Amino acid sequence: MKIVFIGAGNLATNLARELYSKGHQILQVYSRTEESAKALAKSVGSMAITNIAQTETGADLYVFSVKDSVLEQLLAQMPTTSGLWVHTAGSMPLSVFGKYHDDHGVIYPFQTFSKERKVDFSEIPVFIEANSDKNLELLENWVKTFSRKAIPLSSEKRKHIHLCGVFACNFVNHLYAVAEDILASQDIQFDVLLPLIDETARKVHELSPKDAQTGPAIRYDENVINKHLSLLANGNQKLLYELLSKNIHETNKTNK
Amino acid sequence: MKIVFIGAGNLATNLARELYSKGHQILQVYSRTEESAKALAKSVGSMAITNIAQTETGADLYVFSVKDSVLEQLLAQMPTTSGLWVHTAGSMPLSVFGKYHDDHGVIYPFQTFSKERKVDFSEIPVFIEANSDKNLELLENWVKTFSRKAIPLSSEKRKHIHLCGVFACNFVNHLYAVAEDILASQDIQFDVLLPLIDETARKVHELSPKDAQTGPAIRYDENVINKHLSLLANGNQKLLYELLSKNIHETNKTNK
Repeated sequence: MKIVFIGAGNLATNLARELYSKGHQILQVYSRTEESAKALAKSVGSMAITNIAQTETGADLYVFSVKDSVLEQLLAQMPTTSGLWVHTAGSMPLSVFGKYHDDHGVIYPFQTFSKERKVDFSEIPVFIEANSDKNLELLENWVKTFSRKAIPLSSEKRKHIHLCGVFACNFVNHLYAVAEDILASQDIQFDVLLPLIDETARKVHELSPKDAQTGPAIRYDENVINKHLSLLANGNQKLLYELLSKNIHETNKTNK
Repeated sequence: MKIVFIGAGNLATNLARELYSKGHQILQVYSRTEESAKALAKSVGSMAITNIAQTETGADLYVFSVKDSVLEQLLAQMPTTSGLWVHTAGSMPLSVFGKYHDDHGVIYPFQTFSKERKVDFSEIPVFIEANSDKNLELLENWVKTFSRKAIPLSSEKRKHIHLCGVFACNFVNHLYAVAEDILASQDIQFDVLLPLIDETARKVHELSPKDAQTGPAIRYDENVINKHLSLLANGNQKLLYELLSKNIHETNKTNK
């Protein structure tokens, strides 16, 4: 497939590199920032552009991987093209393309991406949606060139999946960051936490998170909870500790 | 070593089974609840007791693995014995043993334990502390029979480590549970989250959590954040979303 990337962020970078390695041709990489466009274009044998009007019009696929707030502006500025337009945003509906281009769809690879880190695409669930059965089939066949899991999903369900990702990844990572902060205050290396972090993740492959729950909050052990609150100097971390403990206790009560 | 277990909870169960498999002899298992005492005793070729006065007095090691709030009561009721007394509690100081028994220490395996799940002890950091160099050496040699990582640590630092474990394990697991809830409301299997959960954990083996952070909260993308808040019907989950997003945004501002 001949592909144009609109956007050069974390997801675009990882996806473009993966597609390039699988033999797809990346015609152009657009970014407002010349530096970003060039960095990605260079690594996938492509051409950088910073003016959306310069987009080549004869590609098979146009992948819009930009912030939700700029997607619609970019769509409005795009020239008329051939091919299929897709976006990669969890919370944007398929309908956003409506008045701009007939053949359109969504591919949402459900993973966290950083430019510094290569991930194994074959295991990533990729949620897809399109305006017609023909385009859905086209997307499915294309996704199968890099992932074993192409899963059709509505915009409504995709929004919820995105929300889950924020809890299970972005928020989880922030809790790791809080732990790192506390360890640093005691001159203890973050490494000692890794076996616990890994086991916490592995555990929910076998047990439901509700059954896997451990710790002082389940039984609302005020003895331990108050000791912990007194150790937290940071007011936001204290609030977080209180709210999470309360919620764990309440979730557990209603589940037993 | 001849060992008596006081307590038959998640940690005691996992540790006793591990020690038994490594050739240590578990003389007795005490629990207030006959059922728990018997269940663990049976699986480690041991004897169940529910009356602390029946504790054998000639063992090498007494492992107290009970809730913080009952530890001191049990210590007060113990008969005079030989050997070393240790507890396994993250937030209890070494000094709790002071008036009850001369030779004492702490072993704190830094991991999450559920009875249903076997963990690999060899990789678990085990923090140790004792009232004398001789007893610390004894503990270290004993711990090395099941873990490669026996790490001396003060009570003060152990409290902080315990607090970190609550953030990086108990609270993280609760976020998985929230995600499971949202998925269930949409009839989506929890399985689709596993690649994301795994990658989020793996990522912090290489990147600091602060560098690994992704998602709408970093740039406080109100467009996405408000959409997500409108999807959350549960008031506690909404509060959690708001607080975590605010904290991520603030952590990120001060780090950039």
